[in-house]
Amino acid sequence: MTDAATTTATAPADRIEESMHDDLATTLDPERAHALDRAHVFHSWSAQAALDPMVITRAEGSRVWDGQGREYLDFSSQLVFTNLGHQHPRVVAAIQEQAARLCTVAPAFANGTRSEAARLVASHTPGDLDHVFFTNGGADANEHAIRMARLHTGRHKVLSTYRSYHGGTHLAVNVTGDPRRWPSDHASAGVVHFFGPFLYRSPFHATTEAEECQRALEHLEQVVAFEGPGTIAAVVLEGIPGTAGVMVPPRDYLAGVREICDRYGIVMIADEVMSGFGRSGRWFGVDHASGGAGVVPDLLTFAKGVNSGYVPLGGVAISDAIFATFAHDRYPGGLTYSGHPLACAAAVATIRTMEDDDVVGRAAALGDDVLGPGLRALAERHPWVGEVRGTGAFWAVELVRDRATKEPLAPAGGSSPEMAAVLGGCKERGLLPFTTDHRIHVVPPLTTTPDEARAGLRILDEALTAAHAAA
Amino acid sequence: MTDAATTTATAPADRIEESMHDDLATTLDPERAHALDRAHVFHSWSAQAALDPMVITRAEGSRVWDGQGREYLDFSSQLVFTNLGHQHPRVVAAIQEQAARLCTVAPAFANGTRSEAARLVASHTPGDLDHVFFTNGGADANEHAIRMARLHTGRHKVLSTYRSYHGGTHLAVNVTGDPRRWPSDHASAGVVHFFGPFLYRSPFHATTEAEECQRALEHLEQVVAFEGPGTIAAVVLEGIPGTAGVMVPPRDYLAGVREICDRYGIVMIADEVMSGFGRSGRWFGVDHASGGAGVVPDLLTFAKGVNSGYVPLGGVAISDAIFATFAHDRYPGGLTYSGHPLACAAAVATIRTMEDDDVVGRAAALGDDVLGPGLRALAERHPWVGEVRGTGAFWAVELVRDRATKEPLAPAGGSSPEMAAVLGGCKERGLLPFTTDHRIHVVPPLTTTPDEARAGLRILDEALTAAHAAA
Ligand SMILES: Cc1ncc(COP(=O)(O)O)c(C=O)c1O
Ligand SMILES: Cc1ncc(COP(=O)(O)O)c(C=O)c1O
Repeated sequence: MTDAATTTATAPADRIEESMHDDLATTLDPERAHALDRAHVFHSWSAQAALDPMVITRAEGSRVWDGQGREYLDFSSQLVFTNLGHQHPRVVAAIQEQAARLCTVAPAFANGTRSEAARLVASHTPGDLDHVFFTNGGADANEHAIRMARLHTGRHKVLSTYRSYHGGTHLAVNVTGDPRRWPSDHASAGVVHFFGPFLYRSPFHATTEAEECQRALEHLEQVVAFEGPGTIAAVVLEGIPGTAGVMVPPRDYLAGVREICDRYGIVMIADEVMSGFGRSGRWFGVDHASGGAGVVPDLLTFAKGVNSGYVPLGGVAISDAIFATFAHDRYPGGLTYSGHPLACAAAVATIRTMEDDDVVGRAAALGDDVLGPGLRALAERHPWVGEVRGTGAFWAVELVRDRATKEPLAPAGGSSPEMAAVLGGCKERGLLPFTTDHRIHVVPPLTTTPDEARAGLRILDEALTAAHAAA
Repeated sequence: MTDAATTTATAPADRIEESMHDDLATTLDPERAHALDRAHVFHSWSAQAALDPMVITRAEGSRVWDGQGREYLDFSSQLVFTNLGHQHPRVVAAIQEQAARLCTVAPAFANGTRSEAARLVASHTPGDLDHVFFTNGGADANEHAIRMARLHTGRHKVLSTYRSYHGGTHLAVNVTGDPRRWPSDHASAGVVHFFGPFLYRSPFHATTEAEECQRALEHLEQVVAFEGPGTIAAVVLEGIPGTAGVMVPPRDYLAGVREICDRYGIVMIADEVMSGFGRSGRWFGVDHASGGAGVVPDLLTFAKGVNSGYVPLGGVAISDAIFATFAHDRYPGGLTYSGHPLACAAAVATIRTMEDDDVVGRAAALGDDVLGPGLRALAERHPWVGEVRGTGAFWAVELVRDRATKEPLAPAGGSSPEMAAVLGGCKERGLLPFTTDHRIHVVPPLTTTPDEARAGLRILDEALTAAHAAA
């Protein structure tokens, strides 16, 4: 076998050598990149005809460069995932090293890189969430978590909040509360939405955080009572709801949800896809609960920050009790790339870097020392800023036409000339913000320096001033 | 900004240098890999307590090595995805080069590597399937294809075959026909299963391929008629059904399905996740249809072979007509890692290698010259072999207790002492086969040499002989 195997290589070595350096050569031309994108790439969440995407040709740390060589400060972390910034040398090295050694094995085998990634994830998840099922991203992590909850409880219904995003596959988007689910909202039997706490636009007519918390828990309790506790498999909620507006839950909310779940044997699923891995200034959003004592869900889903998105990876961290359900009965789910070694290598290097360089502490300090104070100062100066809220490197700036009515500066799911002017102003000045609806989310890499953060805030300040003056 | 940015690096260069080489060091110890796997890795499709996974530490071409340094010939391509074999130098180089340059950008931007991957995919998909929506794997590709079909037609029902596998997320597994869907088979309103052609166990009491074909089309026509043509968004079927048993459709079946879909305005979705990218000895399974003239579906889903699985990647190739539906109306779906540059770099190098080295032609020859004749010879000698069927590097060996009754050697979804003996015999002799139920699938890398293929067939031969003698 060995003799035959030595002839496996598919081309003479010199030919491989030569073509290796050709394979990505044409991809460097930004005009070609743009033209082929328009000819062949179908973009998510978009009408295809109107697109004119910016070409990104290079990136480093908190900065990216477009096809014209223009530099931008990345206050979006792309889609809130490059938690270590772009091209972190240690993560790049781990990917290259793993690629050289062993790109991939099937999920049924064991592999040291996957094992180590699972150990590292489990060492940071709260409580007994020590068993890790790896997926490719956030949506499939939530899909599998819901399946686990359904099989564990023998119940079918899933409760989730209206202000949420849980992914783009059928079940994940049905569970999502945001209007993006509407076009796919057929045959979602078993999914029930409720209101989470959000004092700024309180669904409960509350006037204080404590009141919002208590009323939100009462509301959930009532929804559970009327849906029938014995029919409910899971309550799914983001540790800190992200895309819907970075709404750090009131101090005692998650403990209250935990208590309701415990009382009725309901599985508590925390979606930490966006809020996890240091984004909030703690390892996970749920770690902030109860004044920092934290709350332990039964299942915790993650993706994005786990490996800074350098290779697609997501997963579910599983409690001992739910693990036990599948100890002797088969877990009926899977995917080809579960625990992909290359993705896990990026996770190993990312998590080790976060540990060694206290990246989580730095994110907390960035929020406490720069982003929080800076955004609050901005709110004082700009009448369009209705509220700023957040923690760590995870902030939302809520833009409104009128602070009294709180009328959003752009309609839900849409834009407005004013909103476009703010965004355009940021980009012109070299800042890439993350926006949803009428909000600007300030979500830079956790490794962003205070100076970079201040530079970005200055641009946001100028863009707001200019857009307001022009309106 | 530039000054501040130069301080972005999160640790002094020498410290990074040092830790880089540490990050994956512990992952090399196979005992640690196994122990941590058992402590922290939750495996797909399994009862967790019983697992004792083989550790894979190294792989090259068509061979892998376990923790004890034992060498195996990989006749599984892991999960039928390493179409270029393990560690193909050109693909490894492209991953490393892309990692060094730009690991990731968000889907909304354009990127040259993604553009080039889309161009290359579109250059091989049949007909006008020239628009590519990238996903992370096969399941989400099917989920998005079904959403596109539903929105394009304004209809909801999806028809798929009983003998099929389409993925592990909620909708994908509901569409799946195989019993693995049962545990998740709640709230799958709108999914209807029908029987595809399979002469060896004909659902239609047919005795010839032509009769099977004609009756299978008549059956589909009747299911469509009774479900209501105006209620059906899509017919989903694998170009060549894979996991369910590598059943190359009769010559005129896919053209017949195409005609039914055209007649009723139903979207035809070909799932080429397993059968695509050369596996069958053509670029896609549908290319074999109509005696090689091929059939053009409206949507074609892919994953696995597109980049040999070196980085998670899947996608949907979209016709002009369906693209037009989303030209001015927003496509309401997406995922964080759509068109991930690192995954696309692996696709670029994989597809270019396939082109330059005529990998598809080699797969066809491997089937015609070695695997086909070899397996047929095996069938003659071994009474347990009920049928061998396949094409290219895509073969199934159906094992039965009795050729007349065709009683499977293991029950659906289970195993048997005889089946375990065959598999154990293969592994002992240094062969990793792919098995489902009572079948052995012979699905080596397309780059497997004739000598390697013959060596693997010899092992299978010996394992069958030994297991039969012991039974
Ligand atoms: C909280 C949350 N959950 C799930 C997802 C879905 O993750 P993915 O896009 O990787 O499927 C996202 C994506 O933004 C998210 O923010
Ligand atoms: C035909 C087919 N479709 C879809 C899938 C699902 O792909 P993934 O496991 O990448 O989600 C598979 C996986 O084996 C498959 O064979």
